[in-house]
Amino acid sequence: MSDFNLTDHPHRRYNALTGEWALVSPHRAKRPWQGQVEKIQEEKRPPYDPTCYLCAGNERAGGEKNPDYQSTYVFRNDFSALLEDTPEGLLEEGELFRAESERGVCKVICFSPRHDLTIPEMEVGEIAKVVDVWQSEYKELGAKDFINYVQIFENKGSVMGCSNPHPHGQIWSSSSIPNEPAKEQMAQLQYYNNHRRTLLGDYLKSELEKKERILIENEHFVVLVPYWAIWPFESMVISRRAIQHLGQFTSEEKMALADIYKRLTVMYDNLFEVSFPYSAGIHQSPTDDEPHPEWHFHMHFYPPLLRSATVKKFMVGYEMLATPQRDITAETSAERLRSLSTVHYKQR
Amino acid sequence: MSDFNLTDHPHRRYNALTGEWALVSPHRAKRPWQGQVEKIQEEKRPPYDPTCYLCAGNERAGGEKNPDYQSTYVFRNDFSALLEDTPEGLLEEGELFRAESERGVCKVICFSPRHDLTIPEMEVGEIAKVVDVWQSEYKELGAKDFINYVQIFENKGSVMGCSNPHPHGQIWSSSSIPNEPAKEQMAQLQYYNNHRRTLLGDYLKSELEKKERILIENEHFVVLVPYWAIWPFESMVISRRAIQHLGQFTSEEKMALADIYKRLTVMYDNLFEVSFPYSAGIHQSPTDDEPHPEWHFHMHFYPPLLRSATVKKFMVGYEMLATPQRDITAETSAERLRSLSTVHYKQR
Ligand SMILES: O=P(O)(O)O[C@H]1O[C@H](CO)[C@@H](O)[C@H](O)[C@H]1O
Ligand SMILES: O=P(O)(O)O[C@H]1O[C@H](CO)[C@@H](O)[C@H](O)[C@H]1O
Repeated sequence: MSDFNLTDHPHRRYNALTGEWALVSPHRAKRPWQGQVEKIQEEKRPPYDPTCYLCAGNERAGGEKNPDYQSTYVFRNDFSALLEDTPEGLLEEGELFRAESERGVCKVICFSPRHDLTIPEMEVGEIAKVVDVWQSEYKELGAKDFINYVQIFENKGSVMGCSNPHPHGQIWSSSSIPNEPAKEQMAQLQYYNNHRRTLLGDYLKSELEKKERILIENEHFVVLVPYWAIWPFESMVISRRAIQHLGQFTSEEKMALADIYKRLTVMYDNLFEVSFPYSAGIHQSPTDDEPHPEWHFHMHFYPPLLRSATVKKFMVGYEMLATPQRDITAETSAERLRSLSTVHYKQR
Repeated sequence: MSDFNLTDHPHRRYNALTGEWALVSPHRAKRPWQGQVEKIQEEKRPPYDPTCYLCAGNERAGGEKNPDYQSTYVFRNDFSALLEDTPEGLLEEGELFRAESERGVCKVICFSPRHDLTIPEMEVGEIAKVVDVWQSEYKELGAKDFINYVQIFENKGSVMGCSNPHPHGQIWSSSSIPNEPAKEQMAQLQYYNNHRRTLLGDYLKSELEKKERILIENEHFVVLVPYWAIWPFESMVISRRAIQHLGQFTSEEKMALADIYKRLTVMYDNLFEVSFPYSAGIHQSPTDDEPHPEWHFHMHFYPPLLRSATVKKFMVGYEMLATPQRDITAETSAERLRSLSTVHYKQR
């Protein structure tokens, strides 16, 4: 019998949600690092910054003035990647040159008027207001006939391309279903057709039995490091109930998501005692007026840091040209995250 | 009739080689940037660095000593992500937990003993020796029964996760065919089955007629910005002849690839007058003993810089969770690159 095991041997794992593989090299975390070291984002920010285009009352890059908002504030992105009034059109020249017009709406959500806060430092009640906005935007944007997918996300930290440290997230909604949700939809639909249960529902059930990759739980959500994770401390929030989209959330579920969002990001901040950068975002059913019983609400967190506050994992040569590769196993990461204090390091 | 056009309107383009889409937002390059600014890699390096583990005669991280090499030098990666002696094995638990052992060999190729050089600063004859090594390694590694794919790549610049500025590339060879070549193989095979010509052969023919995305040509290769490019200054080297893999290269073709490699990287360095970072790599037919008439040799260049020597494009939130997005069109990038001097800025 083979003595192959996931703790010691290089292997690949299948991502059941996308149909793609990830390479895991558990032994490789030991290599030395002489490469790029990140600047840590300056930690001390004032509650109000007169030069910030997201602070209340200030002028934005596009020239408009922000209102004197007290909790959250949503506006149309002044430099939207997608526009509402793009003319429809298709340019096809054989199989090799295919382009089509893409309409959409891009918005920015300020999470708080406080320039110096981040999600892990906000109150759960305040975060719940962010979830409220997500819900109403999902409904409102999704109701437009030319919007078939609403992508809600947050880039946190300059290392994740975030161009302003004021706590904020984004929504890019589009007429086509983007690549990643399209892949997930295909896998989920196939699973649902075969089993009449959602893929993530069954996956969550198994993970709750195994326990080794579970990070946090509350009544309505579970956070875990996915079996097929590629980023060193990647995680996924899955709803216990097979909710398809934010529009179906009860008030209690919204509050529970806020609670999980805070607890997970506190955990992250505590890992290297630094404001932990990540890109996070929600995957949910498209707003294309189809039923989508296969879709199961979840949120991905992709944080780049690997060894310390300043050394990140680079998804470069091999990852771009071949297959994503990770140096520690999902199980090791989960264990490490679980062992951390639940109190934010700044409050200790 | 619709006045939709690719120069002014947000649109998506189909990548015929992978089957995935890219979002193009031509108008968005105008937005202001307050985000992360990269440190430019220090330009002045000594020809020999006593602390560099890739310089001739020095001790490596693994404890071995480099020989006093005069041109190229290949060795097994001291921190290989893939190992030769991994026990075979498969761990499957239903559809959702699937892992399999992965065997492979990882190598490092020093391009030159000179610590202070990079490909654009080397002589074509010296670069041809790098191509020689690629060819012999492709053959040697590919001949092993447990190696079915040989991924040759280069990470250049600390911003691309390169951990040592000494000019070098890598080869990671594996028993399974990685994600990206697997996708390309599927698209190429389907095209070949329908037309009995390679996808890239036909694509190259059209591009040579259109001319707008062509960057450089020589007798055996053409460099262009692919129609579906996602990185701001992405490019692709395609062989004129439908060569399947490096093993089939003639001496003349090897020299021609060296010439193209140099001219393209000179062009890149001249864009912002800085040593231009990128990840580059070769896609070619697997070494799985199948015929693969569908495969057409090519090399991808993925450079991250966007606006200047210090501001890069971040593939983050929307890109990770939805679809890759670019701010300038492939045509604009090609025009800009084509307009540059062909003499390296350091030599002017
Ligand atoms: O092998 P290196 O140069 O130490 O490492 C670099 O290239 C590898 C292959 O693309 C990546 O997995 C690493 O994240 C990157 O830092
Ligand atoms: O919209 P921002 O914050 O200016 O820009 C950031 O997020 C976008 C969406 O993920 C990316 O396309 C940009 O590369 C990144 O810098």
